[in-house]
Amino acid sequence: MIFIDACLKKETPYTPIWMMRQAGRYLPEYRATRSKAGTFMDLCRNPELACEVTLQPIDLVGVDAAILFSDILVIPAEMGMDLEFISGRGPVFHDPIRMESDLKRLADDSDEKLTYVYDAIKLIRRDLADDKALIGFAGSPWTLATYMVEGGGSKTYEISKKMVYSAPHLMHAILRKNTDAIIRYLLKQIDAGVNAVQVFDSWGGALEESAFFEFSWSYMKEIADAIKSKHPEVPVILFSRGISGYLDKIDGNFDVFGVDWSTPIEKAKAALFDRYALQGNLEPTRLYSQEAIKSGVEHIIDVMGREPGHIFNLGHGMLPDLSPDNARYLVQLVHELTRR
Amino acid sequence: MIFIDACLKKETPYTPIWMMRQAGRYLPEYRATRSKAGTFMDLCRNPELACEVTLQPIDLVGVDAAILFSDILVIPAEMGMDLEFISGRGPVFHDPIRMESDLKRLADDSDEKLTYVYDAIKLIRRDLADDKALIGFAGSPWTLATYMVEGGGSKTYEISKKMVYSAPHLMHAILRKNTDAIIRYLLKQIDAGVNAVQVFDSWGGALEESAFFEFSWSYMKEIADAIKSKHPEVPVILFSRGISGYLDKIDGNFDVFGVDWSTPIEKAKAALFDRYALQGNLEPTRLYSQEAIKSGVEHIIDVMGREPGHIFNLGHGMLPDLSPDNARYLVQLVHELTRR
Repeated sequence: MIFIDACLKKETPYTPIWMMRQAGRYLPEYRATRSKAGTFMDLCRNPELACEVTLQPIDLVGVDAAILFSDILVIPAEMGMDLEFISGRGPVFHDPIRMESDLKRLADDSDEKLTYVYDAIKLIRRDLADDKALIGFAGSPWTLATYMVEGGGSKTYEISKKMVYSAPHLMHAILRKNTDAIIRYLLKQIDAGVNAVQVFDSWGGALEESAFFEFSWSYMKEIADAIKSKHPEVPVILFSRGISGYLDKIDGNFDVFGVDWSTPIEKAKAALFDRYALQGNLEPTRLYSQEAIKSGVEHIIDVMGREPGHIFNLGHGMLPDLSPDNARYLVQLVHELTRR
Repeated sequence: MIFIDACLKKETPYTPIWMMRQAGRYLPEYRATRSKAGTFMDLCRNPELACEVTLQPIDLVGVDAAILFSDILVIPAEMGMDLEFISGRGPVFHDPIRMESDLKRLADDSDEKLTYVYDAIKLIRRDLADDKALIGFAGSPWTLATYMVEGGGSKTYEISKKMVYSAPHLMHAILRKNTDAIIRYLLKQIDAGVNAVQVFDSWGGALEESAFFEFSWSYMKEIADAIKSKHPEVPVILFSRGISGYLDKIDGNFDVFGVDWSTPIEKAKAALFDRYALQGNLEPTRLYSQEAIKSGVEHIIDVMGREPGHIFNLGHGMLPDLSPDNARYLVQLVHELTRR
């Protein structure tokens, strides 16, 4: 699989590409499946429909890897938290975790309740071409904790960060529970058939440097260690957004560092490419214009060249109002410009 | 004035400190004045009350400089845009700028309508102790443009960034208008009596590196040039949030670089302290805990030492639910640890 080879810094015939949130609302086919499903969580919990939307961008856009269609919040939901996706507001937990006694509400067997995910993986792996990788994923312990503590999305992360500085032991207790749950979940995803795993630390950049390494990165490294010790052949991708100031302190036993668009690719290469493969980092809003796609792609390929170990991706997720045509144009351009 | 000396990298008896959003809701005295004013914009437009809240943190918290109480959005409001502050949602422009023909709606004489600001400055400067500086400010051209184009705050800046990549000439036309208005506004603030000016580029970090320098930083430099050529003695502070990945490309004719909390202070020092004074950068949520204040302050002072050219500040604004006691503790600690 060309995607797996690139993760492991092996030579590939061209630079593989996939896009974060490639299975999503910008595809009319996704919207059609979504409307059959009921709620968003109903779609996540339906293996057949989750399989269908996972495979759509492979055929429709031509990407080199599929990523399991799911949501990072299935873990806290299956820990027993009361999750609702409210239109125009996003995910809401009606029962946020704010004190020690709230921890008792978090069940330790979420990985056993996530069978619908493993079932989806089996269906996808059965239907996906053998040369295309399937990527499994989870949210990072810290990113999940922000939702669990804030009770939903946040602009400032005030409640979570207040906990970081005023009750660090409580935040660590939540992160401990999340980390253990994520490790068990990702190991079961691998057993079900995913070929690589990515940990999404979407809100890592909400923390200053010292807090980031203590409350987010250390747990991400622990997850990577646990996966690699059992499955050394499975690439582990770590993706923390908004940490371009902290690159020189990044370490750990993982394969691929996901580069967000706010980190210049030259700087990620200088700091990390001797140790890790790099994935990224086209600014997603460039997909509004083919001209902007072209100049962005050319710059990234100028920097990364054809040295083994680059996976092309966006620096953040696809936006719902982008055109599928431009997504296809991006994939073709990356393949064309990097083909040997 | 110790604050001005530090901006100009002169020796000071201790490191001066002020706090972004130091005049604000965390002070009961602010809330009392605010409740007398009517709407938030009524408070901005009332020179006596704006003076009152500007001076509160000087006496109550002990900071070394006052910052004019106002809002960055007074410029687009006085350009004629329909601004409303909606509780729980923030500022809203009911008539966003989306196409060429919308530009005609933006009046060119906003600086002449902002007399209530100049009147407030005169009152503040009359009542403020002679050894305390008064800082004037404006939003950056790009940051104002995001509000004007999105029609309010945003999490993703999709509409503004779509314009950056699909209609760059239109975005540049908006930025041109904003830049000209900001220069005229800041020059009039200086004429009215402010001792330094800060440009707040709160959303600079919404742009990838190349777009940041083209659509935000270049205009901020133009503002700094215009101020410094007329008033070489007035310190100019530029503050862009979320650009820790771009520090090595920062240049321009200004005095102080504002360091947000996501930029490790060591890195700002290494990249910029040979050319600029530095202001910052305590993570504001540390103010929830005196222990966290202490370790954060000690770290910043360890790095910056007592070399001339450091102004202590937060890395972002004060939060409404912080305690005035902890703000006072911070100010005393910085003074105590840096006094010669």
